[in-house]
Amino acid sequence: MTSEMNQRILLASRPEGRPALENFKIETVPVAEPGEGEVLLKILYLSLDPYMRGRMSNARSYAQPVAIGDVMEGGTVGRVVRSRHAGFAEGDIVLSHSGWQSYAVARGDHLRKLDPAAAPISTALGVLGMPGFTAYSGLLTIGQPKPGETVVVAAASGAVGSAVGQIAKIKGARAVGIAGGPEKCAFARNELGFDAVIDHRAPDIAAQLAAACPGGIDVYFENVGGDIFAAVFPLLNKFARIPVCGLIAQYNDTGPRPAPDRLPGFMREVLSRSLLIRGFIQREFADQRPAFYEEMAAWIASGQVRYREDIVDGLESAPEAFFGLLEGRNFGKLVIRVAE
Amino acid sequence: MTSEMNQRILLASRPEGRPALENFKIETVPVAEPGEGEVLLKILYLSLDPYMRGRMSNARSYAQPVAIGDVMEGGTVGRVVRSRHAGFAEGDIVLSHSGWQSYAVARGDHLRKLDPAAAPISTALGVLGMPGFTAYSGLLTIGQPKPGETVVVAAASGAVGSAVGQIAKIKGARAVGIAGGPEKCAFARNELGFDAVIDHRAPDIAAQLAAACPGGIDVYFENVGGDIFAAVFPLLNKFARIPVCGLIAQYNDTGPRPAPDRLPGFMREVLSRSLLIRGFIQREFADQRPAFYEEMAAWIASGQVRYREDIVDGLESAPEAFFGLLEGRNFGKLVIRVAE
Repeated sequence: MTSEMNQRILLASRPEGRPALENFKIETVPVAEPGEGEVLLKILYLSLDPYMRGRMSNARSYAQPVAIGDVMEGGTVGRVVRSRHAGFAEGDIVLSHSGWQSYAVARGDHLRKLDPAAAPISTALGVLGMPGFTAYSGLLTIGQPKPGETVVVAAASGAVGSAVGQIAKIKGARAVGIAGGPEKCAFARNELGFDAVIDHRAPDIAAQLAAACPGGIDVYFENVGGDIFAAVFPLLNKFARIPVCGLIAQYNDTGPRPAPDRLPGFMREVLSRSLLIRGFIQREFADQRPAFYEEMAAWIASGQVRYREDIVDGLESAPEAFFGLLEGRNFGKLVIRVAE
Repeated sequence: MTSEMNQRILLASRPEGRPALENFKIETVPVAEPGEGEVLLKILYLSLDPYMRGRMSNARSYAQPVAIGDVMEGGTVGRVVRSRHAGFAEGDIVLSHSGWQSYAVARGDHLRKLDPAAAPISTALGVLGMPGFTAYSGLLTIGQPKPGETVVVAAASGAVGSAVGQIAKIKGARAVGIAGGPEKCAFARNELGFDAVIDHRAPDIAAQLAAACPGGIDVYFENVGGDIFAAVFPLLNKFARIPVCGLIAQYNDTGPRPAPDRLPGFMREVLSRSLLIRGFIQREFADQRPAFYEEMAAWIASGQVRYREDIVDGLESAPEAFFGLLEGRNFGKLVIRVAE
């Protein structure tokens, strides 16, 4: 028996365009008991990521949507409070995918144990977790930057973009970032070491990007979609590679955009410049995870990779924080601190 | 000194949209003398290929356009009539890139000697030449069909499409072709062994294609562009591959097409289905040519690959034959017989 209560946030309805508070429902229910092979987790951190906008919709995607009335899904870091799995003891810190709630029952064999002495445990949701691995696997496997090449990435101060730029630098490429506002631009240039950073709010972004990429663009890591791509496209070099992991700028679109139809021209350039475009989800590269954990931890230890977290307190803050994420109001990897 | 005269066809002006006779100029000039290391060729066959439409325009492409007043470029098979290169003797049959003319001087080290006993020499411009190698390299390197997968290709009776379908079958995949008119469809099904062939003139092509691909499409070899892609796109499976080698249906376009803009939706599907799109030109895979010559010759010998040529007599017929090619009026690999 347990006296703890579980606060959880459900998907109440599917948004048309921009999501709103009415699409969520917050409720409090008794904590469940773990069965054989399961553990009960007290959630400490909840990751908020752009892909969650896709899970709120019914549109065809790489994953099933969250059902109406179900807990919103999401990556989490929790502490084991009761264990019925031999591999876990009370007090262990684990990575799970428990969603937007303060307690969760999880199968032990789906969990990864974290070492709190090795790195702040919240980084398992960011630079040492899914976003970092998205950057690592997509950039190295699809983008394949070579020394001296130019890599461009948007949301350069964010969880994925910051890792893309810094890994590009480690591989000897030039890193050009795009970010929103002077603060993020300065951070990407001065703290993350991007060679150039452009403010996407600038009216002449295409001209600025061209000036920052005098040798053209060899890799465009697409994690935002929308208008940035229009500025990138004319600068792509022959044999340029475009890993596509996200299109946050389009996620709230409700229908096709107005004329002209850019698809035929796009295909013409794909042909004339021998471009590679490849959508991906990091989990298809799961066999690279051990190498990622090892390399990324070493890069962080050596200072070659830095990261910034934007930590917001309280599970009830998650919906508003998520809206901000979709509009670029966060500054660094957005994480909800569910409990101390 | 020589008394032969060279008939040649020059690019007189750049077409706006559909090319016309006025874009060409035919003239007769004295045959040039080969210098040291060169040979004089009497051209026997001239290949006509869709890419030539691109060379007539100034638009950015993977190759320089033909200059106004220059001989139209093109692959050719010729007979050595004078040689100043130790590797070639009078009477040798060689593959060259001599363009739309009846005689040409060529550097010996740019030529490939053909064995007339091994295969009809015109096939060096088709199934055993650039189009066949386009099919081979693009399908195997980018498309990578696996046994049981479904490969779709348009212009299925043409030089590239016919090889794509038959190589797909050799690799254990299902081959679904698209062709124009009942004659070409019957040929692709009965002679080339496609599992299903759809007439692109049918009003319900999308429905027919869906019925012919009950398990979806794993590889779409894009050699036509335009409307076919719209029928293919909804059927693409997760991790589908799209080698892009040509867009003949768009080559005469003069500007962007009307609304809506399909590019954002395209990128969304690239992401949600982890699609791979890759433009290519066969020469980037030049190191595969020895394997291609060997394998393709063996497949032809065993009957696993068949081919059809559409041979038109007379260099002066080249412009009209080329217009027909752009409209799909040829039936098989289009070749001009310049001399007997």
